Amino acid sequence: MRLALDAMGGDHGPQPNVAGALAALAAAPDLNLLLVGDQAQLEPLLAGSSFGPDRIKIVHAADVIGMTEKPVEAFRKKPDNSIATCWKALVIGKADGVVSAGNTGAVVAGGLFSRKFLKGVRRPGIAALMPTAKGRTVILDVGANVFPKASHLVQYGAMGIAYARTILGIAAPTVGLMNVGEEEGKGHELVNKTYELFRNGPLAPSFIGNVEGRDIHRGACDVIVTDGFVGNVILKQAEGAFELMVELVRKNVIGVLSAERELAATAFQTMIGKLHHSSAGGAPLLGIDGVCIICHGSSDERSIANALGVAAHSVRTNLNAEIGAALDALPAFAADE
Amino acid sequence: MRLALDAMGGDHGPQPNVAGALAALAAAPDLNLLLVGDQAQLEPLLAGSSFGPDRIKIVHAADVIGMTEKPVEAFRKKPDNSIATCWKALVIGKADGVVSAGNTGAVVAGGLFSRKFLKGVRRPGIAALMPTAKGRTVILDVGANVFPKASHLVQYGAMGIAYARTILGIAAPTVGLMNVGEEEGKGHELVNKTYELFRNGPLAPSFIGNVEGRDIHRGACDVIVTDGFVGNVILKQAEGAFELMVELVRKNVIGVLSAERELAATAFQTMIGKLHHSSAGGAPLLGIDGVCIICHGSSDERSIANALGVAAHSVRTNLNAEIGAALDALPAFAADE
Repeated sequence: MRLALDAMGGDHGPQPNVAGALAALAAAPDLNLLLVGDQAQLEPLLAGSSFGPDRIKIVHAADVIGMTEKPVEAFRKKPDNSIATCWKALVIGKADGVVSAGNTGAVVAGGLFSRKFLKGVRRPGIAALMPTAKGRTVILDVGANVFPKASHLVQYGAMGIAYARTILGIAAPTVGLMNVGEEEGKGHELVNKTYELFRNGPLAPSFIGNVEGRDIHRGACDVIVTDGFVGNVILKQAEGAFELMVELVRKNVIGVLSAERELAATAFQTMIGKLHHSSAGGAPLLGIDGVCIICHGSSDERSIANALGVAAHSVRTNLNAEIGAALDALPAFAADE
Repeated sequence: MRLALDAMGGDHGPQPNVAGALAALAAAPDLNLLLVGDQAQLEPLLAGSSFGPDRIKIVHAADVIGMTEKPVEAFRKKPDNSIATCWKALVIGKADGVVSAGNTGAVVAGGLFSRKFLKGVRRPGIAALMPTAKGRTVILDVGANVFPKASHLVQYGAMGIAYARTILGIAAPTVGLMNVGEEEGKGHELVNKTYELFRNGPLAPSFIGNVEGRDIHRGACDVIVTDGFVGNVILKQAEGAFELMVELVRKNVIGVLSAERELAATAFQTMIGKLHHSSAGGAPLLGIDGVCIICHGSSDERSIANALGVAAHSVRTNLNAEIGAALDALPAFAADE
């Protein structure tokens, strides 16, 4: 299998991308990579590598889209950018997947422009893993589709269930709809319509109804469906909340210890590492005919290697066949649904 | 000053409400209370109290709205409910404020039905305090208005600024708009329109632009404006995230200590208490001509006493005069804005 890695993406430029690529190659003998980006910058970074061009090959892309550029504008101004080149490799069948720590909006835009969707998909959605008291919850969409229709959300439910089953190994995943209260009829028109479609459709046996913000980290269900605006806020709020707790615990708890300070600090570090790991590996853009993993802009070597590993795993397990079957089981939606 | 307390509200019935009422009376000599609810249940709870009817008086209301009842339906079926009776006391001038730990939707509905809004207010909004790395941030709306217009959000900005100045004592509060990215043009139509109104209106000097989920607990600004759907998810997610962290720290950090376990546990408890306290005192429904504080359903005696204290403080400091002035400074909005 071959994955296209956007070697220019992220806050730290090519270095962590190339290092992560080499680590992923070492870990997975069935993996080959296209390293997409500026040849002049990438060649020196590959110089010491023991992998030949059969395992890793540079594909030149002259331009880079900045992390805060407006996606659509950037695609027009810089047609030869590394993200578009990755997608091109997927579209023409030179790659099975795309991995990027670059501008999220641009990666999603590249996917939308490619039109390489799985059959029946109305809008791809980004899934993320959230740590919970019981393990992990898949939440989608977290930012690809900030003003969806109800049919999109039901498709996200089907995709999320397939993802939880195939990638997380949960036999019969449950799905909840993010709302402002548990009772039916809470919230606005979009969630009410979505509730109705879930409740009266083929996903009804998996549907636990509405869930609230406090249910996210409690692990009330395996998959949470929400619009990309709310999902994006949730994802980033979790990051901020844990950041604050880490700061407060270090200062107010670990800081007051003496004899066992070292012990507590090490235990805390391990705990944080596990929390971080539980959401690591990047966020898949689901609904694409191929694999696409979007990494955090701050990704380091390990995160990139993890994301490549998850992408490879998605190809190996044929996640898309599961997603395709789940989507096929949904009824045909009306145009305005 | 006189406040109407919904003595039947909350998960635990009249007991914590009455106990909180008595504690609040002891703390504030200028405070008088109407204890609204079922006389037969309330009288025995007041029996041992040293306060006479000049300080605390039962106002009978035969019905109670359950915590999960649909507000509008419940108001129709149970016209003599304790929440409606509190609002009636406000409308006819027998009370300066309403405090309730009851069904949030019903408290808001009571406020909307009362139509006792401050001049120019289109829709009241609920403000909540979130703990941050720097102190506290006011976020609104957290659930009164799940599908607002842009003009509502700008009014929330003005109200939030007045609240931060008057109640939190921040001289020149800054305001941010919750969005999925910091750059202008991110998100959907509602936030784009709202951004434009902030940027080109009288609040521009206080407006720092878009903020993201991770900024909430970082304390990027003093006031965060968002729709009631997103705000409600944020408020409850914070609760769940801190709950998870508390569980994990207790188990994985404090649990591995021996000699200093007690010390760490006590320090952690103090830290949690401060975090909890920072958001205690209930959430004000702003935009009402009068004071309304909505408490968490799980409120205990201390929370109710705090909420009554905050309500009394809002009356004393004349928060509504500040809010009125802030709203007056806004331009007239078009009907569809």
